[in-house]
Amino acid sequence: MDHFYAHGRNHLFVPGPTNIPEEVIRAMNRNNENHRSPIIPALTKTLLVDIKKIFRTTSGIPFLIPTTGTGAWESALTNTCSPGDRIVSFLIGQFSYLWIEQQKQLNFNVDVVESEWGEGADLDILASKIASDKTHSIRALCIVHNETTTGVTNDLTKVRKILDEFNHPALVIVDAVSSIGALDFRMDEWGVDVVVTSSQKALSLPTGMGLVCAGPKAIEASKSAKSARSFFDWNGYLKSYKLETYWPYTPSIQLLYGLRAALDLIFEEGYENVILRHNRLAKATRLAVEAWGLKNCCQKEEWYSASVTAVVVPPNIDSGEIVNRAWKKYNLSLGVGLNKVAGKVFRIGHIGHLNELQLLGCLAGVEMTLKDVGYPVKLGSGVAAASAYLQNNTPIIPSRI
Amino acid sequence: MDHFYAHGRNHLFVPGPTNIPEEVIRAMNRNNENHRSPIIPALTKTLLVDIKKIFRTTSGIPFLIPTTGTGAWESALTNTCSPGDRIVSFLIGQFSYLWIEQQKQLNFNVDVVESEWGEGADLDILASKIASDKTHSIRALCIVHNETTTGVTNDLTKVRKILDEFNHPALVIVDAVSSIGALDFRMDEWGVDVVVTSSQKALSLPTGMGLVCAGPKAIEASKSAKSARSFFDWNGYLKSYKLETYWPYTPSIQLLYGLRAALDLIFEEGYENVILRHNRLAKATRLAVEAWGLKNCCQKEEWYSASVTAVVVPPNIDSGEIVNRAWKKYNLSLGVGLNKVAGKVFRIGHIGHLNELQLLGCLAGVEMTLKDVGYPVKLGSGVAAASAYLQNNTPIIPSRI
Amino acid sequence: MDHFYAHGRNHLFVPGPTNIPEEVIRAMNRNNENHRSPIIPALTKTLLVDIKKIFRTTSGIPFLIPTTGTGAWESALTNTCSPGDRIVSFLIGQFSYLWIEQQKQLNFNVDVVESEWGEGADLDILASKIASDKTHSIRALCIVHNETTTGVTNDLTKVRKILDEFNHPALVIVDAVSSIGALDFRMDEWGVDVVVTSSQKALSLPTGMGLVCAGPKAIEASKSAKSARSFFDWNGYLKSYKLETYWPYTPSIQLLYGLRAALDLIFEEGYENVILRHNRLAKATRLAVEAWGLKNCCQKEEWYSASVTAVVVPPNIDSGEIVNRAWKKYNLSLGVGLNKVAGKVFRIGHIGHLNELQLLGCLAGVEMTLKDVGYPVKLGSGVAAASAYLQNNTPIIPSRI
Amino acid sequence: MDHFYAHGRNHLFVPGPTNIPEEVIRAMNRNNENHRSPIIPALTKTLLVDIKKIFRTTSGIPFLIPTTGTGAWESALTNTCSPGDRIVSFLIGQFSYLWIEQQKQLNFNVDVVESEWGEGADLDILASKIASDKTHSIRALCIVHNETTTGVTNDLTKVRKILDEFNHPALVIVDAVSSIGALDFRMDEWGVDVVVTSSQKALSLPTGMGLVCAGPKAIEASKSAKSARSFFDWNGYLKSYKLETYWPYTPSIQLLYGLRAALDLIFEEGYENVILRHNRLAKATRLAVEAWGLKNCCQKEEWYSASVTAVVVPPNIDSGEIVNRAWKKYNLSLGVGLNKVAGKVFRIGHIGHLNELQLLGCLAGVEMTLKDVGYPVKLGSGVAAASAYLQNNTPIIPSRI
Repeated sequence: MDHFYAHGRNHLFVPGPTNIPEEVIRAMNRNNENHRSPIIPALTKTLLVDIKKIFRTTSGIPFLIPTTGTGAWESALTNTCSPGDRIVSFLIGQFSYLWIEQQKQLNFNVDVVESEWGEGADLDILASKIASDKTHSIRALCIVHNETTTGVTNDLTKVRKILDEFNHPALVIVDAVSSIGALDFRMDEWGVDVVVTSSQKALSLPTGMGLVCAGPKAIEASKSAKSARSFFDWNGYLKSYKLETYWPYTPSIQLLYGLRAALDLIFEEGYENVILRHNRLAKATRLAVEAWGLKNCCQKEEWYSASVTAVVVPPNIDSGEIVNRAWKKYNLSLGVGLNKVAGKVFRIGHIGHLNELQLLGCLAGVEMTLKDVGYPVKLGSGVAAASAYLQNNTPIIPSRI
Repeated sequence: MDHFYAHGRNHLFVPGPTNIPEEVIRAMNRNNENHRSPIIPALTKTLLVDIKKIFRTTSGIPFLIPTTGTGAWESALTNTCSPGDRIVSFLIGQFSYLWIEQQKQLNFNVDVVESEWGEGADLDILASKIASDKTHSIRALCIVHNETTTGVTNDLTKVRKILDEFNHPALVIVDAVSSIGALDFRMDEWGVDVVVTSSQKALSLPTGMGLVCAGPKAIEASKSAKSARSFFDWNGYLKSYKLETYWPYTPSIQLLYGLRAALDLIFEEGYENVILRHNRLAKATRLAVEAWGLKNCCQKEEWYSASVTAVVVPPNIDSGEIVNRAWKKYNLSLGVGLNKVAGKVFRIGHIGHLNELQLLGCLAGVEMTLKDVGYPVKLGSGVAAASAYLQNNTPIIPSRI
Repeated sequence: MDHFYAHGRNHLFVPGPTNIPEEVIRAMNRNNENHRSPIIPALTKTLLVDIKKIFRTTSGIPFLIPTTGTGAWESALTNTCSPGDRIVSFLIGQFSYLWIEQQKQLNFNVDVVESEWGEGADLDILASKIASDKTHSIRALCIVHNETTTGVTNDLTKVRKILDEFNHPALVIVDAVSSIGALDFRMDEWGVDVVVTSSQKALSLPTGMGLVCAGPKAIEASKSAKSARSFFDWNGYLKSYKLETYWPYTPSIQLLYGLRAALDLIFEEGYENVILRHNRLAKATRLAVEAWGLKNCCQKEEWYSASVTAVVVPPNIDSGEIVNRAWKKYNLSLGVGLNKVAGKVFRIGHIGHLNELQLLGCLAGVEMTLKDVGYPVKLGSGVAAASAYLQNNTPIIPSRI
Repeated sequence: MDHFYAHGRNHLFVPGPTNIPEEVIRAMNRNNENHRSPIIPALTKTLLVDIKKIFRTTSGIPFLIPTTGTGAWESALTNTCSPGDRIVSFLIGQFSYLWIEQQKQLNFNVDVVESEWGEGADLDILASKIASDKTHSIRALCIVHNETTTGVTNDLTKVRKILDEFNHPALVIVDAVSSIGALDFRMDEWGVDVVVTSSQKALSLPTGMGLVCAGPKAIEASKSAKSARSFFDWNGYLKSYKLETYWPYTPSIQLLYGLRAALDLIFEEGYENVILRHNRLAKATRLAVEAWGLKNCCQKEEWYSASVTAVVVPPNIDSGEIVNRAWKKYNLSLGVGLNKVAGKVFRIGHIGHLNELQLLGCLAGVEMTLKDVGYPVKLGSGVAAASAYLQNNTPIIPSRI
């Protein structure tokens, strides 16, 4: 049953699926229940209230869809746009690429703004497109908050500023899959119309829940959007909310209890503290990368990601070999390079339920692996750089003061 | 956290979500893993091989989609049909109704053949439609194998016979959600082109996996089907099968291990024995209903369902009250009446990981509940009738002989 | 790994080990922890406070020993008595027999008062022994509250009355293994000096915790008791309580969390309600036995046990065959007859985390098994009798009103 | 319920309780069972066979007692010795001290051979005692294989050589609590008569099983040993082995399944490989300690322990403060200094289910903690030293080659 057995724990440092807290594993360790009993609606109601705090919205309406991030993307698009609608989309890595592919499959008219992989969305081009779009032909902007391939975070406040400047009504649809719960994200403050995330990232749950939150403008848009849709239709959810059954079809009982536990843990740690922790671990990782003499795939500090760091390897080394070796020798799971950066980068996910020593164990493993594949790293150098930062910047665990 | 606490086990007798075996709960009690490591593809490969045995197909191609039955329906439709295509669909209860609603949402031209709720699909009408469809305007037939609302099972061999008789090329798309793993089902033998089921029914898993199996004709149809689709697109799966990554996006690690365990248990019990067991428990349930002096919602023996029995209550009693009371007093979860039969029937699901004494406990609970709500049942009568049958027809558990 | 696989749940109706609530299984589903961190003492402290409510004592001191009931017996004896001490002990079944064997092994001078198996302790003999023991040569009385072999409960208030009448200082040491959490038990009110139970009975935990509670007179006695002891010595515990480390050696982390969850569930249901529930299920069981035309091994109503019923089978039937068959055909685990009543009785444990429908499922299984082995039972008769009582006497689940 | 919540995993590096593999946690995640069904004896039988491979004995008889290491000690002593018997016992740390205290409580005549803490047992004194004991007044030698307080391993082959040289019949009773499963141990080859371990150490299980293995000479001795005993009596076990019920009282069902899984994992990794892994992690730890400029409490290389390293802190630092801080800031659980070395050493347990990166994470945490408390460590230095060794000496995981 368990193939590929290894001694000790797996060190899971891909940028999703992430490590699930024991508390959440426990909460999900249960039999099925009747989803039509009073229990599940009562539980769901608390989730719908609390997940809004995670999206930092009061006016948005959340949908907890039994799907993945890919399905959540589709839900965001088909409920707000009609076939042929012009969508401005930013291509900056594999996930924005896949999203754009989906937009094409769904028959939207995609206006792609491409950047070098390692750079953020080109907002100058956006500004000029918006400026010249007097007829408001642009229905929506689709942008990833954090591009998981390259470890690049876009500044969404700038997007909002551009639209506001020109008083443009385009919907802002954000892929926050590797962002929500890890990066600072403010739906209402930033004027995001639809935001999408998924359970197996910073929420530290199993895969299987695509979370979508729609603001008032998006809900309004959904009333006239002509894309054919059924499973992903918000209308079924909205009807069930009115009926207080909360579900148009059967949800995963286990994921609901898991989400409840995950949210409880986030609130117990303090949502602000969770974000600070992600920043802290990301910074420590970047210091290690620097100490190893390697480069961050992300080209500028303003785009640095708090959830994942893509590390560029020297040209003579295949990053895939690093990922393989780390797994085969140290039971360390790193992220591979995808598409354009395949073989060129490996990725360290520092997202989800993690702490300082887990990260330092990972960094020590990366060092040994680098040496294994012939890169002349000084063992301990990255750990030393990261430790120096962490030792100075890690607070006492609040519950243990 | 656990609202509505009750002493002792919940008696889960809705026709899904069903009881999860301890072995499966254990298999799913785990941390996330990197889905791009060699482990998950290796595991998936075994699942894709073994699930075909459950569908009884050698030529079909299975898709294990992170969704529910509703999503699996959509996947079956959008991959095989184009907007405007004529679909003959049978309306015999709430789930066939919802599927038809979906077919309309997805812009198919639905030709609805309605029956009284409690009756099977009207195959005479089908025969006449097929007979008169010389131009082969009918693209597909959509039919539920088992209608969960009314406990009615359609005879799919007759459907095939009608098509063969007229040499009609319509695709046969079957909702086998409350069937696969409980009822005898033979994809290849019966000429089913697409079959759909979901994890929380007879497979006894949590909700979250929609299983679709497509035969060669359906795969061929998918190449020209014009319905817009992305998440549910088979093509992404087929590409990943070729690459042996097996996933176009992130699957639930836990459900994969769960399905592995669930299949192992089915094969250990013997798939034939699993079907026989469902027949045995269903028969015992019907004997109890008869002993109580109540009627089966299913009007003819040929349609009797092995997975669920809908029981008609006398006109002076609200079946919703029975369901409420059973849950509030005996921690017994029964299925409510839906839509046209709301208030008129309650449902006993005898599907999934269950045995004889669990069922008899349920039947005893139904008896007491009937008495509680004023129906003059003779306590013990249903259990006696069911026991008499079960005592004579239950074999020794093979592993304990 | 799982030998003897069977479909559906195991119906566990032995009088221990009992069914563990899902909530408790979840609480125990965890990694080890450092038992010297602040967490475990803090947790233990809450357990030591709350377990006293279960023993209904304010002056007693509890010890949660990593052992079984047999070890808890030994702890009660060696901490209070010295080799050669005279102990009056009541032999009324297999467990009192084993305890007496232990008393002999530990070199006490055991004065055995035997009754027929099926009868309670002979308190008349006790009265005469106490009356004539002017020199107070009797150091202690050892008595089971509930004899698990025969389903006989002794009236401990009478024991106290006899001692008080003669102002006799003998210690009262009670085996409440199959009693605490199921039967009404009042340590302080009844003047019990040491009480012993174990985790896998009405507390519905795994085996592995022997719970001992010692009143002030017993603690005083422990200071001069000369029995050699180390692992079971109360002194090590008392020292650790003073140091607030709470453990003289390493406890099971999992059982501590399990006990916390088990106590929380008992308090949530209401301790009084838990006792009432045991009485209710026991009464229903006895009504079924009567309906089957069989006899209770327990000879008088005053001794009827709320935790287990031993059922006498006709002379031509081997009760062992009933137990075997129930397990092999219905996955029903019944208790065998032990020692003197081997082959003559089987036992239905109605103790621990159970509800009405679980019991009725068991009773239906017993009926079918009786028929299987040739006893001419009327199927449904026992269930009818039990149901009639339960339907009238089961309250709505408080959290669901 | 969960006090003291912290983000990320607890880093458990006390020398027991140790980290439980997910596979074992899963195996234990289950309801109770009837221990008198055929399942539990069949399972136990496999355990009794396989545990002998762990003790490396063919002639020994194992006892899996529901107790802790302290109880296992008592069982070893009371079954082989009589009150007043002369026992030569070596005091080299807190656990040998506690065992000697127990030996005194149990009324043996203990002849204590003390060493400085940090040194091994003084075998020269043993040799002279044995040489001069012409009357064979010495009944038994009690020696720890590995003293967990100081990280000192005794060479048991020398003990055997001394006895053989003088043809002395003393029983050799070994505490291998923090040894079995981590250190090379050979019961038969080394002529050990009784060996004792416990479940929460290198077997990586929860606390609650004390494992004792008795060789033929010990079994023979048990027939005439006069120590009063009941719960720990081997005779009850031997009788149950003959009856093939395998249990004189109720075992923990969960621990039996857990032990089965733990043994399966050891055999899958290869028992030799498990020992090599412990040596490897221990060596890496010592290299880190050296790099930090700190001293090993263990005074000579011949005594170095593969399961725990006790690190001596400079006189101006309180080792307790290190342990506190590591837990409060980094969620790292280290072992405290006990008794004579309280405040002077902290302990790193590198025992049980662990791998290289887990250890390196721990070492990074120790470094930061040392700096936190004012010790001028060079961050990264220990990790660098350990990594250099591990990178060169860690083989590819066999199942992943």
